[in-house]
Amino acid sequence: MSDVSSSLPASVAWIAGVGASAGLGAALGRHFARAGYTVVLTGRTAPRVEALAAEIRAQGGRAHAAPGDVANEQDLARIAQLLTSHGILRSAIFNAGNAVRAPTLELEVAQFESAWRTNVLGGFVFARAALPLLLDAPDAATNTSGAGSLIFTGATASLRGRPPFAAFAAAKAGLRSLAQSLAREFGPRGVHVAHVVIDGGIDGERLRSAAPQRAQDAGPDGLLQPEAIAESYWQLHRQARSAWTQELDLRPWREPF
Amino acid sequence: MSDVSSSLPASVAWIAGVGASAGLGAALGRHFARAGYTVVLTGRTAPRVEALAAEIRAQGGRAHAAPGDVANEQDLARIAQLLTSHGILRSAIFNAGNAVRAPTLELEVAQFESAWRTNVLGGFVFARAALPLLLDAPDAATNTSGAGSLIFTGATASLRGRPPFAAFAAAKAGLRSLAQSLAREFGPRGVHVAHVVIDGGIDGERLRSAAPQRAQDAGPDGLLQPEAIAESYWQLHRQARSAWTQELDLRPWREPF
Amino acid sequence: MSDVSSSLPASVAWIAGVGASAGLGAALGRHFARAGYTVVLTGRTAPRVEALAAEIRAQGGRAHAAPGDVANEQDLARIAQLLTSHGILRSAIFNAGNAVRAPTLELEVAQFESAWRTNVLGGFVFARAALPLLLDAPDAATNTSGAGSLIFTGATASLRGRPPFAAFAAAKAGLRSLAQSLAREFGPRGVHVAHVVIDGGIDGERLRSAAPQRAQDAGPDGLLQPEAIAESYWQLHRQARSAWTQELDLRPWREPF
Amino acid sequence: MSDVSSSLPASVAWIAGVGASAGLGAALGRHFARAGYTVVLTGRTAPRVEALAAEIRAQGGRAHAAPGDVANEQDLARIAQLLTSHGILRSAIFNAGNAVRAPTLELEVAQFESAWRTNVLGGFVFARAALPLLLDAPDAATNTSGAGSLIFTGATASLRGRPPFAAFAAAKAGLRSLAQSLAREFGPRGVHVAHVVIDGGIDGERLRSAAPQRAQDAGPDGLLQPEAIAESYWQLHRQARSAWTQELDLRPWREPF
Repeated sequence: MSDVSSSLPASVAWIAGVGASAGLGAALGRHFARAGYTVVLTGRTAPRVEALAAEIRAQGGRAHAAPGDVANEQDLARIAQLLTSHGILRSAIFNAGNAVRAPTLELEVAQFESAWRTNVLGGFVFARAALPLLLDAPDAATNTSGAGSLIFTGATASLRGRPPFAAFAAAKAGLRSLAQSLAREFGPRGVHVAHVVIDGGIDGERLRSAAPQRAQDAGPDGLLQPEAIAESYWQLHRQARSAWTQELDLRPWREPF
Repeated sequence: MSDVSSSLPASVAWIAGVGASAGLGAALGRHFARAGYTVVLTGRTAPRVEALAAEIRAQGGRAHAAPGDVANEQDLARIAQLLTSHGILRSAIFNAGNAVRAPTLELEVAQFESAWRTNVLGGFVFARAALPLLLDAPDAATNTSGAGSLIFTGATASLRGRPPFAAFAAAKAGLRSLAQSLAREFGPRGVHVAHVVIDGGIDGERLRSAAPQRAQDAGPDGLLQPEAIAESYWQLHRQARSAWTQELDLRPWREPF
Repeated sequence: MSDVSSSLPASVAWIAGVGASAGLGAALGRHFARAGYTVVLTGRTAPRVEALAAEIRAQGGRAHAAPGDVANEQDLARIAQLLTSHGILRSAIFNAGNAVRAPTLELEVAQFESAWRTNVLGGFVFARAALPLLLDAPDAATNTSGAGSLIFTGATASLRGRPPFAAFAAAKAGLRSLAQSLAREFGPRGVHVAHVVIDGGIDGERLRSAAPQRAQDAGPDGLLQPEAIAESYWQLHRQARSAWTQELDLRPWREPF
Repeated sequence: MSDVSSSLPASVAWIAGVGASAGLGAALGRHFARAGYTVVLTGRTAPRVEALAAEIRAQGGRAHAAPGDVANEQDLARIAQLLTSHGILRSAIFNAGNAVRAPTLELEVAQFESAWRTNVLGGFVFARAALPLLLDAPDAATNTSGAGSLIFTGATASLRGRPPFAAFAAAKAGLRSLAQSLAREFGPRGVHVAHVVIDGGIDGERLRSAAPQRAQDAGPDGLLQPEAIAESYWQLHRQARSAWTQELDLRPWREPF
């Protein structure tokens, strides 16, 4: 299922927002690596990022740990620079974000700002770091440059504001709007910008420890499996440019919506 | 890329709304047949449906022509009955619909009704014919019944009403709403109901003869290629039930939106 | 609060979908009559329509009963003709529609069609009957013709399809799309087309007898008061053309959404 | 048209985002003052705010200048404190925001942040300053506390991201989401939270100097008149709590959308 032959420069996927081993960021890294991509993994916690890179390499894949803060302009510029030595950036995925939960009058300004910084500002500086590389990427099919995908992870809250998620929802709505602006600006220049609304709980350590009852009540396949989500990102990335998706939702079969 | 082994009952895909050889219905038929499905092809013009079935069989696929009116309850009930002799229905795709174009005060009641009949009533009776089969389909992974996909083709007009498409848009908005109701009702019973917003012109005879200048201005990959659309339907169908998409849009990279 | 002086031709408001005395249609009739409009009242049940007209006249207002089927082209054409003898049509309000409730596989084709006929086809033929009059209405402020409002009543279901309301929701989504097409086509010709999403239960006989517990649980002002809704329609009608609303929602303060 | 008798504590409207004399903030101040409210006017440029307050007082209204930065927590807390000496806060309107315009790759991080700070963080800190007062406001009709309105000004960009407005749109989408969260949280506590989508150019100095041709092409009533917008805010504020609007759009009759 490899898209790249070994004599060509490697195709690189940059995954920002790599956290827990069982999380979505890690699943994206493994998935693109299995498909033959060189994956560059970014996340705040260096040991986690490095462990994932080592795991992927142990499975025969190509992976590089590039720890950093996904909302930090300097970190991202540095990593973007480093990317170019590994091959040609073909996919950049922004997968950061943590939900803050509080009644609105109890939210601190610092919490409100932090939600924005991680989700919206992060998405913006990540896009600014990745886009010049994607715009320069040669497109073999058309013999021009401008190719690849830029994908943002959204949430139920991207579509509607609701307590106790006022800060998180305002941030996710901003990120979704940003993805739309970027799609309209860079689609016609060859970059496929997409936004994925994850509408349900992702199966993993975080949810299973924070809400064990919810995990149990969900029943079989009642939580989103990171690997299943990753497959949809991969298919988004693979879409032919005559029929690109800008937004799709993903939710478990039994999830009310 | 076959999903089915030959000793098991065949997996059947029912494509309703098969018209021109270069159209989306035909591309869907070819795509699912190549993936190993037995395809049952329904459309009003028997010779077209039969020609496509013959073509697919000539390529080594399994295809049955089942001509009929996609908005006619008796036709669809008859075809659904016939389907069961070919294998197990795994995917039912409703792809009917023709845009009426007129200033609203010049639209006849009969035209307004016809748009509804083809798009909304058709979708409803098609769903009623297909759902009992999909709800009965055995799901090997879980050893229960209830499996498969039910996919509806939408359009730009599904999301907003705009002259001179008042009749078509009202119909497509109704179909989209129906797809949502069905998703909420039958998702938890194992059937993946999805709606695809085709936001742009589909490359094919119809558009190239009706709007040759538009086809030319679109440039390379500036019109949706039926085969690219069909691949996204196929991926929708393949999604694991822990991460289903209810709606996605498809548009050419250069399409303003 | 009268907008019209008695020496000028009367301003006429046409309310279609007049039913129960405590319903929204009746409240709209009373409200526009109190504001000095001649109201023409249309609904299927002649005695109800006549009783309301008599009540309004007894309060000193001007009202005419014009019973008829709001989805019947001939009935509406006849009433539109009759309207012109009462003054100048300034507001036409389409307020028809009854929710059908059933699991989708138990819905009869006739029920599905009936929901469409009342809500969508009704809205279309009503618009076609009212628009020529609204386009001819003289606009004193600008000394041209083309003035007045055309307002459609929507529901929660207008925005999302959900069982057991598949038929009703598909119809209401179609009506909403129609209102958008009409707004885009006739706004620039001077007619203000608006759609009101009634998102909650309307206080009245129907709800109080069908769901007495719900009425009780709602608490004070927990159901929409018809008079409060009518006031918002009136304000929509009064909006200056430099700042028109195409869609607004109305819901009780305690309604979850 | 006064809602308040002079023997009761004055009803106060707090307008944040008062700028040019011909702008929306100023029109809102004049409108609520004419309706008998004591208006407290906040904006960054003290002389403008003071000139408006003086003008309103010269016309016989009650107005207080309260200059300050609408995104500054301390400024807003100070003004909220001062408000209580003027009467009971009944309406708080957040009307800040300036569109930044640039290709996304040329946007500085500081510009992106500034758009967020003015629009989203400003809306959040304004809501936190106003809500405790609105939640304490006595409701004469029900003899409880919790009354009044909190209204946010949105824009076309609130609903869709589009270059060259990526920063502005991401901010406005965030503000809209925040308004939704607040409506869901504080509606059931008696505070009417609404969001107004201004979909078109507002007539005034800014647009007439920045885009004189556009102002001319718009034709009569082709730009939103601030006074017409203010009337719709006033009607939102007046809505009975059994039928509240959470969102409405306002656009000129000839505006394409």
